[in-house]
Amino acid sequence: MISKVGKYEFLAEPFHCDMEGRLFMGHLGNHLINAADFHSNDRGFGMTYLMPRKLAWVLSRLVIEMDEMPQAYDRFTVETWVESAMRFFTNRNFRITNVADNRVIGYGKSVWAMINTETRQPVDLLKVRDGELLNYVETEENCPIARPSRVTMSAEAQEVETISTHYCDVDMNGHINSIKYIEHVLDLWSLDFYRAHSIKRFEIAYVAETHCGDKLSFLREETAPNEYCVRIMKLPADGSVAQESCRCKVIFVEK
Amino acid sequence: MISKVGKYEFLAEPFHCDMEGRLFMGHLGNHLINAADFHSNDRGFGMTYLMPRKLAWVLSRLVIEMDEMPQAYDRFTVETWVESAMRFFTNRNFRITNVADNRVIGYGKSVWAMINTETRQPVDLLKVRDGELLNYVETEENCPIARPSRVTMSAEAQEVETISTHYCDVDMNGHINSIKYIEHVLDLWSLDFYRAHSIKRFEIAYVAETHCGDKLSFLREETAPNEYCVRIMKLPADGSVAQESCRCKVIFVEK
Repeated sequence: MISKVGKYEFLAEPFHCDMEGRLFMGHLGNHLINAADFHSNDRGFGMTYLMPRKLAWVLSRLVIEMDEMPQAYDRFTVETWVESAMRFFTNRNFRITNVADNRVIGYGKSVWAMINTETRQPVDLLKVRDGELLNYVETEENCPIARPSRVTMSAEAQEVETISTHYCDVDMNGHINSIKYIEHVLDLWSLDFYRAHSIKRFEIAYVAETHCGDKLSFLREETAPNEYCVRIMKLPADGSVAQESCRCKVIFVEK
Repeated sequence: MISKVGKYEFLAEPFHCDMEGRLFMGHLGNHLINAADFHSNDRGFGMTYLMPRKLAWVLSRLVIEMDEMPQAYDRFTVETWVESAMRFFTNRNFRITNVADNRVIGYGKSVWAMINTETRQPVDLLKVRDGELLNYVETEENCPIARPSRVTMSAEAQEVETISTHYCDVDMNGHINSIKYIEHVLDLWSLDFYRAHSIKRFEIAYVAETHCGDKLSFLREETAPNEYCVRIMKLPADGSVAQESCRCKVIFVEK
């Protein structure tokens, strides 16, 4: 049997790096999701197996915590494994290592559900391929960062931005791409702020899908020094009532 | 000596694909620019050689013409070579091939200048490493698409969108990322339009750099059936006069 931990190498592409030559958090998130996808495809429960069966993984939560972001041209690996699996959710962890000096530079945690793509209803993921996923649960590996937290915001949160969504925001499922939310959230801070701060931890909970043409409204609150919560509300194009789409927490450190 | 033509393999990553599972033109453009960067780094006149010497390549024009866009999970190669080099400009071509059936699916052409990153002035690129670039000019390879055209627009062009620029738009040079312009331009059409049309040819001329905080205004004109020209004007954050930033031409075909 193939190993429980998958390991994939990526390059911090120069045009995926910010003004200081560090990989954008959104692109790192994309690499993590790719690693998850490669890992599950290689083990027979990935998108290529699920799609013809009208099934799909849905990312429910993602948290990334970094000691250091890869710099332009750095090669890094993403290791990923399934930490646990229940009927309607599975926990998947990530470890990010700089290849040049084999140094662990960060970790990630994620929670996934499975849905039927026609009914949009949750599916018992332990029944897929007779519970093949359970054969890959790995409990020995360590992922020493806090689990996704409960993002609680007060009525004090201020609406700081409203944006429209467009063609390039939409993924293969016809929804706003999970990574695009991360980029839109990080765009709420100024370049000057990023000159003085690095992102230590980014977490996002996906609550409801949005579609092209929906507007997204961003409410932000500083809940502790250098800790911000952001709620994304969708304002549907059809004029129906506003609804929570995502909740995020971003923890910065001063440089 | 290393070969004149560089060949690099890429994957059409699932989260880089549009609602129909075809690679976004912006991500393809990024792969082309990466291939150009890898090719020039491998031959001693790339960003890693230039940066410590306060020199940089600047993309001046890019045109991509596709018979077919890679689909999600397709592997494709980008071959690239220098077609010609003059003192202040070099022409670089691209050929895109689907790996599975070794079929050429598109081509690209580009024009690059070199600047001194401190003075922002053009540099004689034939003097870099005693004209090393000239040793790599390749005239035998074929790139059978039209050169970048002169994008001419009438006074009829309508302003169709104005957007703000943010942290995730900015590249390592502190300017708006070349690829982000492509995405912003393609966002001018609706999902319904893309359901009925594919992009046959995309071309962009970069006229003036923009900075984070500048607003971008998009003027569009349909210059022939399914052929559109787009002019991007920058509205600088410091209130100075609006200035042309890019000109694009997009040719669609009906599906």
